[in-house]
Amino acid sequence: MQIASSLLENAVNEFARLPGIGKKTALRLVLHLIKQSPEDVQRFSQAIDKMRKEVVFCTVCHNISDNTVCNICSNPLRKKETICVVENIRDVIAIESTQQYSGLYHVLGGIISPLDGIGPDQLTIESLITRVQQSAVSEIIFALSPNIQGDTTIYYIQKKLQPYPVTITTIARGISFGGELEYADELTLGRSLQNRMPVEKYVSH
Amino acid sequence: MQIASSLLENAVNEFARLPGIGKKTALRLVLHLIKQSPEDVQRFSQAIDKMRKEVVFCTVCHNISDNTVCNICSNPLRKKETICVVENIRDVIAIESTQQYSGLYHVLGGIISPLDGIGPDQLTIESLITRVQQSAVSEIIFALSPNIQGDTTIYYIQKKLQPYPVTITTIARGISFGGELEYADELTLGRSLQNRMPVEKYVSH
Repeated sequence: MQIASSLLENAVNEFARLPGIGKKTALRLVLHLIKQSPEDVQRFSQAIDKMRKEVVFCTVCHNISDNTVCNICSNPLRKKETICVVENIRDVIAIESTQQYSGLYHVLGGIISPLDGIGPDQLTIESLITRVQQSAVSEIIFALSPNIQGDTTIYYIQKKLQPYPVTITTIARGISFGGELEYADELTLGRSLQNRMPVEKYVSH
Repeated sequence: MQIASSLLENAVNEFARLPGIGKKTALRLVLHLIKQSPEDVQRFSQAIDKMRKEVVFCTVCHNISDNTVCNICSNPLRKKETICVVENIRDVIAIESTQQYSGLYHVLGGIISPLDGIGPDQLTIESLITRVQQSAVSEIIFALSPNIQGDTTIYYIQKKLQPYPVTITTIARGISFGGELEYADELTLGRSLQNRMPVEKYVSH
C-alpha cells in the first residue's frame, strides 16, 4: 500500500502494530483522526502517553492504579475481610462489571503453568500470604480459569494458606445461564451433575 | 464497566471514540500498550499527534501530503498528461495499490449529492478545470462510485470540460474477477452484457 504522505504512513504503521488491527483498519482510523480537530487528536494522544507513563500497580492487590494504593483497596465501603484472587486486571474489570462483589481483589499476574515457564515465584503469591497474615481476612475466593493450570494454582495457594484460619472457596462452575444442555461440553455437564444444588437454594438466589 | 485507574479509564474512553472500536476492544488495546515500553507508546502517540498537526493537502491534486505539492504530483516519473479523478484519499490509495496506474490524481473531496447538501461548489471541480487549462492534460479518467451521484458528477464535469481537447473515460464496470454470475446484481450483469468486449482485447490484457 503506497501512501502519498509519510506522516500519514507513519501513523498508519503505528496503529497497525496494535493487536487485531490490520493496515486497512489502521488507515480507516487515521483518516478518521484527520477529520477531527487538532485539539481532540492531542487529547487522544496525551491520554495514552500519560496513561503509560503514570499508571502504577497497587502495592496491596497488584491491580492497575493511579496511586500506590488503588481505588478499590482504599475504598472504605469495600469489605476488607474477603479477597477474590484473579489472574489479571481484565478479570477484575469483568467481576466489577457484574456489580455483585464488594470485597477486595488480589491480582496474581498469571497462573502456575510450567509449560510456559511460569512458576509460583513469578506470581504475587507471597504478597497474598502476607495480606492474610497481616489483616483480618476471613475468606479467599478463587476466580481462576477452569483448567488444569488454574486448579494447580488453587491447590498450591491452598496448601500455603493451611496454617491460617481462612475459608477458601472458588466461583461456581456449571451450565451458563441461557446455555443449552445439548451444546455444553461433557466436563462441564458432568461436574454440574456432581455439584448439583438444592432447588430452594437456587431459587433464593 | 468500572476500572480502578482513572488514567486507564481515560485512555480506554479515548480509544472507544474511534469508529468501530467498542469499550472491550479499547480495553484490549490499552492493556496491550501498558505492556509496551514507555518509549514505544510515546512514539505511537507522537506519530498520531504530529500527523494531525503537520499533514496538509496538496495544492495541485488535493491529496493528503507532507508538503504543498504531494509526492505523486512532484514525482518526475509520473505521466503528467493523465489525471484520474477520484472521490477521496482512500480511493487514491486503492488505485495506487494496484500498481497499474502511473498518471496523476485529482481528489474531488466527495461527489455531487443534493440530498446530502453537496453541490459542485463544495468539490474541487474548479481546480480541476484550471489544471486542464494550464497544463497539457490529454486524458481524464473518472474512477467514481458506480451510482447515480457518481454519474451526475461525471456528467457535470464532462460538460465543464467540453471546450478543452481532452479525452474523457471512466473505469470499466462489469463482473468482478472471481465473482460468480448467479450472485451478481442485475444492473451490473445487464451493463456488462451491453458493454461486452471482443475476446482478443480481453485476452491481451
